[in-house]
Amino acid sequence: MARVLYELQGRADRRLSPYCWRTRMALRHKELEAEFIPVQFGQKDRIAFSGQELVPVLQDEGGRVIHDSWAIADHLESTYPERPSLFGGEAGRAGARFFNGWVDRALHPAMIRLILRDIHDGAIAEVDRPYFRASREARFGMALEDYCDPSAGRIKAFRGLLEPVRLALEEAPYLGGAAPLYADHILFGTCKFVELCSPLVIFAEDDPIYEWYGRMLALFDGYGASDGAAGGPAGEPE
Amino acid sequence: MARVLYELQGRADRRLSPYCWRTRMALRHKELEAEFIPVQFGQKDRIAFSGQELVPVLQDEGGRVIHDSWAIADHLESTYPERPSLFGGEAGRAGARFFNGWVDRALHPAMIRLILRDIHDGAIAEVDRPYFRASREARFGMALEDYCDPSAGRIKAFRGLLEPVRLALEEAPYLGGAAPLYADHILFGTCKFVELCSPLVIFAEDDPIYEWYGRMLALFDGYGASDGAAGGPAGEPE
Repeated sequence: MARVLYELQGRADRRLSPYCWRTRMALRHKELEAEFIPVQFGQKDRIAFSGQELVPVLQDEGGRVIHDSWAIADHLESTYPERPSLFGGEAGRAGARFFNGWVDRALHPAMIRLILRDIHDGAIAEVDRPYFRASREARFGMALEDYCDPSAGRIKAFRGLLEPVRLALEEAPYLGGAAPLYADHILFGTCKFVELCSPLVIFAEDDPIYEWYGRMLALFDGYGASDGAAGGPAGEPE
Repeated sequence: MARVLYELQGRADRRLSPYCWRTRMALRHKELEAEFIPVQFGQKDRIAFSGQELVPVLQDEGGRVIHDSWAIADHLESTYPERPSLFGGEAGRAGARFFNGWVDRALHPAMIRLILRDIHDGAIAEVDRPYFRASREARFGMALEDYCDPSAGRIKAFRGLLEPVRLALEEAPYLGGAAPLYADHILFGTCKFVELCSPLVIFAEDDPIYEWYGRMLALFDGYGASDGAAGGPAGEPE
């Protein structure tokens, strides 16, 4: 049974989700091939077999099904220990676990607030817009247009949140140290998502994070530079 | 030449600084003995030999002088590689570097805002109060009493910042994983500082961080449970 990753499909077949990009990069990092199956918000029946409604869902060789990007990374690391490590050991795994939570709970809420309109208006599949608007307006308790705020002050606050990343990058080229590890893929997913969804310039060109992002885009023969669409190099079943 | 740590001295000889506690715990973790020299804010001449004005300053055996708690941890790890590791390897070190920056840049500003008055009124040496007030009021641009805000809303926001720590502690008893590493000592320093400075209850008793703190206090034969004063067990030259 082939390895299959179910991932969020946006407009023009772009693969949007920051969480799915974590898994894409983790699979490449582990040098594991996979087929990518796109799933729109309105196509949750495609992943009903996983017992829940969120992508990414990985169906690994042999049929084992794992959902949640962290659980998938953990699964890949323990199932394929002979391949390049995602965590660099137990202490590295613990650090990545904290980082994963920090990106999800601290960084993403600030990021979403900047680009929510762009996600709705131009990034997701057109057919998904009513669902996206209704679910997000229920979550945020107001109209998308009111919640979204790409003002200079909010951009500055978002950039400020990333200060610990800059401190880490002062010492090493990657969050994993001398070479990229899963923590890098976590933050890469966020940056890639913003890039695919919005024209907003979230990093100044002299920001060390901007330089780091350039290094990440070049990884794995430029794998991350694609938009993931099936017509592009990253979207083809490998 | 004996190993000496210069650290901040508060009222009643309590050793207050969260950064100095990081180093205290790191020394114990490495099973290294040291003499502890107290330094009040008004006694910066005692560390003038380090070429700067902030504690902790470590003068290691052989006379090498290192300042800044992160640089000290790094020094201890590389100088004494045969002793228990503070980082658990290169990936663990990278994770700890991010965590160090996150505590300094994200957590501490929110924490200070809650207990600034308590620090001034009761924690630091009485003789240091005018300096402390003047330097902090210059930094914050307002009176200490106006900047400090231990309201329920600020406490809730502070607790919210710690959500990624809780996620990590769902999986493992320590931030380092199955056993404590330097990341644990970093956050311990913050919690210890609050405990020594303020009666404020920053963690609910059912908070997993509260339970973790209990484990940290018990480490190294209860070393962290002392206030560090020279009369107590932790303050005696070892």
